[in-house]
Amino acid sequence: MPDKPARGLADVVAASTALSDIDGRAGRLSYRGYDINDLAGQASFEEVAYLLQRGEAPDRAQLDGYRAELASGRTIGSLADRDMADIAAVQQPMEALRSLVSLGSAGDPDAGSNQREANLRKAARLTAQQPVLIAAYEAARTGRELPDPDPDLSVAANFLLQISGNKPDPRAAQMFDTCLVLHADHTMNASTFAARVCAATLSDMHSAVVAAIGTLKGPLHGGANEQVMRTLEAIRQSGGDPLEAVSRQVAERLRQGEKIMGFGHRVYKVEDPRAAHLRRMSADLGAASGDDTYYQMSRRMEEVVFGEKALYPNVDFYAATVYHYLGIPTDLFTPVFSVSRMAGWTAHIIEQHADNRLIRPDSEYLGEVGLTWVPLDAR
Amino acid sequence: MPDKPARGLADVVAASTALSDIDGRAGRLSYRGYDINDLAGQASFEEVAYLLQRGEAPDRAQLDGYRAELASGRTIGSLADRDMADIAAVQQPMEALRSLVSLGSAGDPDAGSNQREANLRKAARLTAQQPVLIAAYEAARTGRELPDPDPDLSVAANFLLQISGNKPDPRAAQMFDTCLVLHADHTMNASTFAARVCAATLSDMHSAVVAAIGTLKGPLHGGANEQVMRTLEAIRQSGGDPLEAVSRQVAERLRQGEKIMGFGHRVYKVEDPRAAHLRRMSADLGAASGDDTYYQMSRRMEEVVFGEKALYPNVDFYAATVYHYLGIPTDLFTPVFSVSRMAGWTAHIIEQHADNRLIRPDSEYLGEVGLTWVPLDAR
Repeated sequence: MPDKPARGLADVVAASTALSDIDGRAGRLSYRGYDINDLAGQASFEEVAYLLQRGEAPDRAQLDGYRAELASGRTIGSLADRDMADIAAVQQPMEALRSLVSLGSAGDPDAGSNQREANLRKAARLTAQQPVLIAAYEAARTGRELPDPDPDLSVAANFLLQISGNKPDPRAAQMFDTCLVLHADHTMNASTFAARVCAATLSDMHSAVVAAIGTLKGPLHGGANEQVMRTLEAIRQSGGDPLEAVSRQVAERLRQGEKIMGFGHRVYKVEDPRAAHLRRMSADLGAASGDDTYYQMSRRMEEVVFGEKALYPNVDFYAATVYHYLGIPTDLFTPVFSVSRMAGWTAHIIEQHADNRLIRPDSEYLGEVGLTWVPLDAR
Repeated sequence: MPDKPARGLADVVAASTALSDIDGRAGRLSYRGYDINDLAGQASFEEVAYLLQRGEAPDRAQLDGYRAELASGRTIGSLADRDMADIAAVQQPMEALRSLVSLGSAGDPDAGSNQREANLRKAARLTAQQPVLIAAYEAARTGRELPDPDPDLSVAANFLLQISGNKPDPRAAQMFDTCLVLHADHTMNASTFAARVCAATLSDMHSAVVAAIGTLKGPLHGGANEQVMRTLEAIRQSGGDPLEAVSRQVAERLRQGEKIMGFGHRVYKVEDPRAAHLRRMSADLGAASGDDTYYQMSRRMEEVVFGEKALYPNVDFYAATVYHYLGIPTDLFTPVFSVSRMAGWTAHIIEQHADNRLIRPDSEYLGEVGLTWVPLDAR
């Protein structure tokens, strides 16, 4: 029993899981025993979500059934629908998602149950709903109609359709699908851990997912991908040659002790295996767009940060330019992360409920002791 | 570095705090160095909330200023106001609070800032708002008008006024005030820990409080007080002498290995010091009501459970009958817990933001390894 806190619980084993595993020294990530390098480009997001939530790779009939569940879950519920315009007018995207998913429990027939079958149905509905909530939010704030979902499209392709109004290029949809696969789960990241702390009181899946959304919002977690893009945009807008500007400004920031978003990771000591896939996609999409400046700037930034600090880019770094080239508005990058991570969050909640113990740590007390309360008038 | 998980993080020191301290073997709880037995009945909830959020006991001028802040914060924001009737019609109380507080960030001018001064203002507003949200929810679902808040009343007295429509008996208001003091903070309880995990990504106070509300909802945490009352009601309604029914039914449940809600605690090895105060209030309020059956049933249940299992009642056990005698509807017991704990949650978020490190534990992987992904058509 340590009596000194492990700051940030670094290296403390807080739970057992059969969902994902990281070897931070080898730079390996696997979902239920499948290496991420094996899954990326081969497995669809639907297959991966099924694998995480239900425990094994689906066969054709299982996958068809799951896809049908997802397609029929592309609705946002009556409370969210009624309030969308009001919410989109006054709440930032992650605040809005936190509110909308919380409101959404009202329309879920399984909201009050933590039973496995109920949790599986809710997991599918929440996975289907999250991208539609984001597209509906985008439509509401821009005053457009939300395009009807296409039940024949994948989660990835349907999101690109509903967010833009145009049926996506198959290559773009394929790359976005791979992005969703890469971000689907990542052991005890902060939002997943928040979801498990919540679920471990035997609270319900919606409460745990809402806790996770609020946690993902933070700039030290899901908020980082948006910050990466804002940094690239600011440097490019500062004028001059963008690559020279990157070299100069990033080196200057590092000298001043500033943190550069998108680099380094608590767990990986070598390159994050997801970053390599995202780097390649950023290069491809940049080239296809006819202006790969942001990709080139990212490469340069990577060189400067590695040269100065020996830090590797993490999953957020190249996700930023990939999402940018896919036409996703910058302030929806973190919401898009949540579309993918919903698969992992819900799977972790199911796992927590299946073998539960309250998560209730101790703390070290550092304050004053033995004070005597003096009534107000004598103070 | 342990490689086996501490299940539920029991006895793992997860953070440092100067807010509260528990000596589980001696049965002692203190807030910032003041023993709970010294505070209960002497300090008002406003003084305790100030102490927790701002670091020291307020003098007269500081307390007057804080009370004025709270009184001016007795509003629920335009989004919550507009949606209250819809939400109250379809969401259970804790679901509704999760939604309403999430919507509430829209109206808060400091919502986007984690600076200390902004956090202090938000902490006061959230503390003022929570009881009004509950009273407004109760008014909406029962089709009554929400009584206007009275700026001259304390948080406790104003809540009893707004929930019932009648100015409360001063003795009842005093006891409810003591309840709020007793529940205000309790080190790394699950909801507070969820709030800190969220805040440690540098997400905002509303997100962290929403995570805490969803976590408190669970029956292994805040939901326990409601479960205690439901158990007492069910036993009483089963007919016969209520005390004999308690003895028979509780012994039978224990023999069948059932958990009796309201007993035992992860941290206390002796009696929870808060339970003694609540037991006394339950006795007084029961006697004053002219029917102390539920109090007597509670005493009997305590004897049976201690006799069979040597478990002490925890804070939830006598809180149930106290809230019942105060006229609070049973399904609002957990929301009432949140009124009090809001003081602690917000103080912990301020403390986390002031000296932050991402809370990101490790996990132990128990699943399959080294699998090869087989494409769907070959599966």
